[in-house]
Amino acid sequence: MPDTGTVVAVAQLALAVGELDANRQAVRAAVAEAAAAGARLVVLPELSDSGYVLSDADEARSCASPAATGVTLREWRSLAGRHNLTIAGGFCELGPDGKVYNSAAIVDASGTRAVYRKAHLWDAEKKIFTPGDDPPPVVELPFGSVGLMICYDLEFPEWVRLAALRGADLIAVPVNWAASGSPAPPGERSGEVIAAQAAASSNGVFIAVADRCKTERGVDWLGGSVIIRRGGYPAAGPLCQDRTAVLTATVDLRLARDKRIGELNDLFTDRRPDLYARLWDVA
Amino acid sequence: MPDTGTVVAVAQLALAVGELDANRQAVRAAVAEAAAAGARLVVLPELSDSGYVLSDADEARSCASPAATGVTLREWRSLAGRHNLTIAGGFCELGPDGKVYNSAAIVDASGTRAVYRKAHLWDAEKKIFTPGDDPPPVVELPFGSVGLMICYDLEFPEWVRLAALRGADLIAVPVNWAASGSPAPPGERSGEVIAAQAAASSNGVFIAVADRCKTERGVDWLGGSVIIRRGGYPAAGPLCQDRTAVLTATVDLRLARDKRIGELNDLFTDRRPDLYARLWDVA
Repeated sequence: MPDTGTVVAVAQLALAVGELDANRQAVRAAVAEAAAAGARLVVLPELSDSGYVLSDADEARSCASPAATGVTLREWRSLAGRHNLTIAGGFCELGPDGKVYNSAAIVDASGTRAVYRKAHLWDAEKKIFTPGDDPPPVVELPFGSVGLMICYDLEFPEWVRLAALRGADLIAVPVNWAASGSPAPPGERSGEVIAAQAAASSNGVFIAVADRCKTERGVDWLGGSVIIRRGGYPAAGPLCQDRTAVLTATVDLRLARDKRIGELNDLFTDRRPDLYARLWDVA
Repeated sequence: MPDTGTVVAVAQLALAVGELDANRQAVRAAVAEAAAAGARLVVLPELSDSGYVLSDADEARSCASPAATGVTLREWRSLAGRHNLTIAGGFCELGPDGKVYNSAAIVDASGTRAVYRKAHLWDAEKKIFTPGDDPPPVVELPFGSVGLMICYDLEFPEWVRLAALRGADLIAVPVNWAASGSPAPPGERSGEVIAAQAAASSNGVFIAVADRCKTERGVDWLGGSVIIRRGGYPAAGPLCQDRTAVLTATVDLRLARDKRIGELNDLFTDRRPDLYARLWDVA
């Protein structure tokens, strides 16, 4: 049964750390391409303005901009208005508290709808960014409710569950999946993609992942951009190629509101939260 | 890097509902085959004594036996002693409370080490069995700590997390994966296997799944028996063939005690349980 409804896009980009103008140009081009394909939502990679392989906290700070007044989100608001779509992407945030965050935002023509700060930091990010303490946001849009988290966040099933229980129909996930992360044996799909598929399946949500490509300061990327249906199978991708691309899929996000997976089963009401409370005894 | 240490086996069996003698004979043969291959642990399918496609509660009751004194676990204790291995398998339990459970047990030469009752019931099981209210058990064995859950339980990331946090190095999962469950598109691996891979990866545990094959009262099975390494990639299987088989893999279960996945990352200490408590606000 083909989905009807909304075209969703994920933009796999080649970015260069510190090259903010060139990176923003890459975003502009990808958003225009997505819009031309009819997309109502376009997902950008993690840290799409600064690039990822930052040397240290000082370099990150030099690339960071405030959510409210900074150039990155101001440009996204302009792009969203011009193309009549919603952007969910990662950016390097200078917080009002003076701290630097690995953040993401959902922006539409009406303005910035949500800012999220990555709660689970990967590797050297721990030396560069302050972790976020707020749950993944969920924003109601005309075509469905969109949740937001960043890269390594997606590996924590509790976090995905939280976004799903808060009402996300689709979870947008800006990532920078390093190719060295968990190299797949021959013939096997990468574990990062597998984790995204399982997250979609166990929560009955769509998941849209925008990854990176090309080498940045010696780091190669998986290029695993993918749009996954609520049942856990891909609607577009996973690309797993080292090239820029805008992947699109036409999906009906409202399907994610029905958690039934059989006459007598429902992914949410079959949960046993009373028993899961024991997690707190061993955590 | 090849694993060293323990041979683990999963037995994919053809069973017939109500044919308890024939089903037990199938188990005896599979355990002997696993033992001949050097297995120290053999996992059997869900409801391996009764068969799965029970008509109603009365038929289930007629096939059920008590854990302490019943014929099924008595035979497993005898087999475990004779072959010097541990059996983790599903059986139809008549509880001391008179209720019938979809249960599983871990049995070794010293006796029954744990009995677990499926907490998340699938489809018509809800009309037949009483759900369990206890967490997945974890049993310390000479070669590692083995956790236990049953089929649909594995689709709930909270449940797998609980077993992992309680110290499971390997989670044994007796299943009856119906082929009609979530049919995979061409070229895609079945969602049930994907979920098991992601569960292994996100928790840094081994997972050993024993599935069914052949048709039972019109129901076909996935035949997806698989042994998954702690990184989430298969060590043996997934078979995904409609034939009986004993799959084995040699694994070092102690590897699961190191949850590090990089110089600065650890699957458990990177969790944010303080933030996950918000799950209780939306559950």
